[in-house]
Amino acid sequence: MTEASSPFAPRPDDRTVEAGTVFSPRFDADGLIVAVAADAGTGEVLMVAHMNREALARTIATGDAWFWSRSRHKLWRKGEESGNTLAVADMRIDCDQDAILIKVRVAGAAVACHTGYRSCFYRSVPLGAAPTPALTLAVDETMPRVRAG
Amino acid sequence: MTEASSPFAPRPDDRTVEAGTVFSPRFDADGLIVAVAADAGTGEVLMVAHMNREALARTIATGDAWFWSRSRHKLWRKGEESGNTLAVADMRIDCDQDAILIKVRVAGAAVACHTGYRSCFYRSVPLGAAPTPALTLAVDETMPRVRAG
Repeated sequence: MTEASSPFAPRPDDRTVEAGTVFSPRFDADGLIVAVAADAGTGEVLMVAHMNREALARTIATGDAWFWSRSRHKLWRKGEESGNTLAVADMRIDCDQDAILIKVRVAGAAVACHTGYRSCFYRSVPLGAAPTPALTLAVDETMPRVRAG
Repeated sequence: MTEASSPFAPRPDDRTVEAGTVFSPRFDADGLIVAVAADAGTGEVLMVAHMNREALARTIATGDAWFWSRSRHKLWRKGEESGNTLAVADMRIDCDQDAILIKVRVAGAAVACHTGYRSCFYRSVPLGAAPTPALTLAVDETMPRVRAG
């Protein structure tokens, strides 16, 4: 699916992008848009990934979350191997239409990260001092995890 | 602040990136990393923006959210004009360390989006049918808004 065959509207003027109801997602030079998945029940941010036009179109049509894997260079239905698919309860677009938010219900073991953690954001960065290469992350021991990475 | 003068650790092997406690954020070819801001109290996703090394370092050191504005090509302390600064209660990094999550408390009018909406994600994309250029977004009329865009 190229820009020419895109099922999305061409980009209108900036005011319409922000204040209107035309859906005209902005894809970057690689043809990707960032997508944030959050739990539909708790609001917890689970993962950040990317969609190309095809992945976005499939997600809208099917209600299952599809992404573009930048490392594997392929379309990817989240959970197709692990069983932890993401059913999209609500999809949102931001003001300038260059980021997607999907509110999801995770199937299977209710784990969104391939490491087995419920969320990909299982480590905290300490704040309040200028960072150095010796900065050490803190693992969130309270986050549910079903298996080792 | 260049890659050579970066205060962050060089990239270790993939397993250490995911399972270790070395903080080694991956910046893209433009020197940016995506950052998701969510409300520290409710978990609501408020905005998605980008940080360069300097913005990330300042956010860590000060606890106020700094970003890199891709449209204005400048460092930007969120809320410096509107008063709606973001105090970072918790910063997280994801499994492959190419996305940042900040859990924030919004100062001022508690509005994160420049349009006056509490969150940038004030429009929904209808699901369940293949998208076409005629697809129409639904504005979330329940989202608090303090002023017109």
